[in-house]
Amino acid sequence: MPTTVTARATASAGGSFERTTIERRDVRPHDVRIEIAYAGICHSDIHTARDEWGAANYPLVPGHEIAGTVAEVGSEVTKYKVGDRVGVGCFVDSCRECENCKAGEEQYCLKGETGTYGGMQDGKPTDGGYSEQIVVDENYVLGIPEGIELDAAAPLLCAGITLYSPLKHWGAGPGKKVAIVGLGGLGHMGVKIAAALGAEVTVLSQSLKKQEDGLRLGAQHYYATSDPETFEKLAGEFDLIVNTVSATLDLDAYLGLLRVNGTLVEVGAPEEPMKEAAFSLIQNRRSLAGSKIGGIRETQEMLDFCAEHGLGAEVEVIGGDQIDEAYERVVASDVRYRFVIDIAQL
Amino acid sequence: MPTTVTARATASAGGSFERTTIERRDVRPHDVRIEIAYAGICHSDIHTARDEWGAANYPLVPGHEIAGTVAEVGSEVTKYKVGDRVGVGCFVDSCRECENCKAGEEQYCLKGETGTYGGMQDGKPTDGGYSEQIVVDENYVLGIPEGIELDAAAPLLCAGITLYSPLKHWGAGPGKKVAIVGLGGLGHMGVKIAAALGAEVTVLSQSLKKQEDGLRLGAQHYYATSDPETFEKLAGEFDLIVNTVSATLDLDAYLGLLRVNGTLVEVGAPEEPMKEAAFSLIQNRRSLAGSKIGGIRETQEMLDFCAEHGLGAEVEVIGGDQIDEAYERVVASDVRYRFVIDIAQL
Repeated sequence: MPTTVTARATASAGGSFERTTIERRDVRPHDVRIEIAYAGICHSDIHTARDEWGAANYPLVPGHEIAGTVAEVGSEVTKYKVGDRVGVGCFVDSCRECENCKAGEEQYCLKGETGTYGGMQDGKPTDGGYSEQIVVDENYVLGIPEGIELDAAAPLLCAGITLYSPLKHWGAGPGKKVAIVGLGGLGHMGVKIAAALGAEVTVLSQSLKKQEDGLRLGAQHYYATSDPETFEKLAGEFDLIVNTVSATLDLDAYLGLLRVNGTLVEVGAPEEPMKEAAFSLIQNRRSLAGSKIGGIRETQEMLDFCAEHGLGAEVEVIGGDQIDEAYERVVASDVRYRFVIDIAQL
Repeated sequence: MPTTVTARATASAGGSFERTTIERRDVRPHDVRIEIAYAGICHSDIHTARDEWGAANYPLVPGHEIAGTVAEVGSEVTKYKVGDRVGVGCFVDSCRECENCKAGEEQYCLKGETGTYGGMQDGKPTDGGYSEQIVVDENYVLGIPEGIELDAAAPLLCAGITLYSPLKHWGAGPGKKVAIVGLGGLGHMGVKIAAALGAEVTVLSQSLKKQEDGLRLGAQHYYATSDPETFEKLAGEFDLIVNTVSATLDLDAYLGLLRVNGTLVEVGAPEEPMKEAAFSLIQNRRSLAGSKIGGIRETQEMLDFCAEHGLGAEVEVIGGDQIDEAYERVVASDVRYRFVIDIAQL
């Protein structure tokens, strides 16, 4: 018998979020039932809820930044026990057989990982974290270490890993100069993590409005990209630039900021094609790359790293009635730095 | 007293190559005077001669794939002696002081390396290898090992290093699947070098016209890019793709051929901006990169590697009277695989 739980759903593209109920499956031998405490609001939730990426199914229950505690475990679960603090990120299953799954890079599953919401499981679309409970196979559940509050932990499951993975992959650390483009939900985690990794961190933001925050979060430098002098002054400066801004950038200008062997990594996905001159890459042997969240193993590594360094997201906690307003504010970049839904007030 | 030597020059954009004379400086303490035996014809020579890249100075003596023997050395030269077999590539000097020069990556000199032709030295434009002699600082001269004929060695100084450098940088070797896009002057060296490095090599060419050659040069697979099935069949196949084709490609299609962490490297420079969807990079954590020739140290390493593996360019030797015709044939992709001017017939 499935369990009926309260959730927040939108019934149509751009519709408001209404309280409703959904069903969660009974735990199977390897399943974990999670009592959700907090669910972060990711910009992807908004794109999907508004059907801006196409193919959304309604009613839609978004949410892939989930933190809570284990309420029940299946008969063969070994990784978690009732009461454990746990999280769920952007996917709840994958094929487990392709070379990427086997390598622990389930985010690049060749058969397509199963999205936490809007994915297909048991023949129907999955429902995400804007709900009281979720039931997930233990292999796709993360442990949240003591030392990170659950509200600050929730956004780590998407925003945190989305920045941690490329920062680690491209070697952010002591002696490396790293720029984070955009100081939003993703960017603020990038600053914290890159600084904790030991890199010299610069924020490149449209204006200097959030400069004080950026420096407090761990950046050593802060520049406004609206000022053309920024691009002259910082030419050839960085080893790594992580772009968290989905809007179309003047990529040639940003590539010009990379020194020899430098990489500019896109973690957002602008709708328009990206465009750059070959010469911007050929000079200084530069790379333009992309990166997508992280695998389960690396996500756990990130959570452990954040706990060790006392890192969590900066959050604004809201109730279920405020989701619509929060969406408007995220689109207007008016949040410092992540909205998190308190499921007790769903 | 400068030495007057015979050369081939074009007097204007797109003009024909006429026999003329130029002056070479007296050897300074660190200079080497080289009796040029062969000069390769690089597509860059054509772009420059026709002023397609702008800012060409006329009369223009192209040529940056130079092989010959040392005819005279300056009083303080230690690296070479009269009679040594030597080469000169795309640059004859650089600032020697910037971080890139100090790192042996003179091709990315922050002050701009001095081009072998069309660069500025002693207040006037440099003249390239379509000439009887050249005088170059010993630090920018390469040794050509015994075991490579000088005519087959000349194209290594540009085409060879342009492929060797990215193949080494991105780890082409045993267990790696490498695709070379285009089987021309650059591409044929890419196939030879990648195969000698131990990679599994695939040629991606417009048609199957040169398939036999490709396999003979060391490729294990050969596909026509005009066949859409190629892109389905090879999806997610390669660790590294080196694109030697300057024409604008459907980059999303080529990026789709890369597996996790794969890189597509541009070594040509299409005039139109490159364009790709962010998603093509984000999926599989792919990179789009550029690479430009190589530094002096790496160019020497490449020449030694080629000698060790018995590699040279496949050349068609011509006299000075045939340069105009050779240019036409290069533009029409009608050369297997590099024209080399025999300076004895200049």
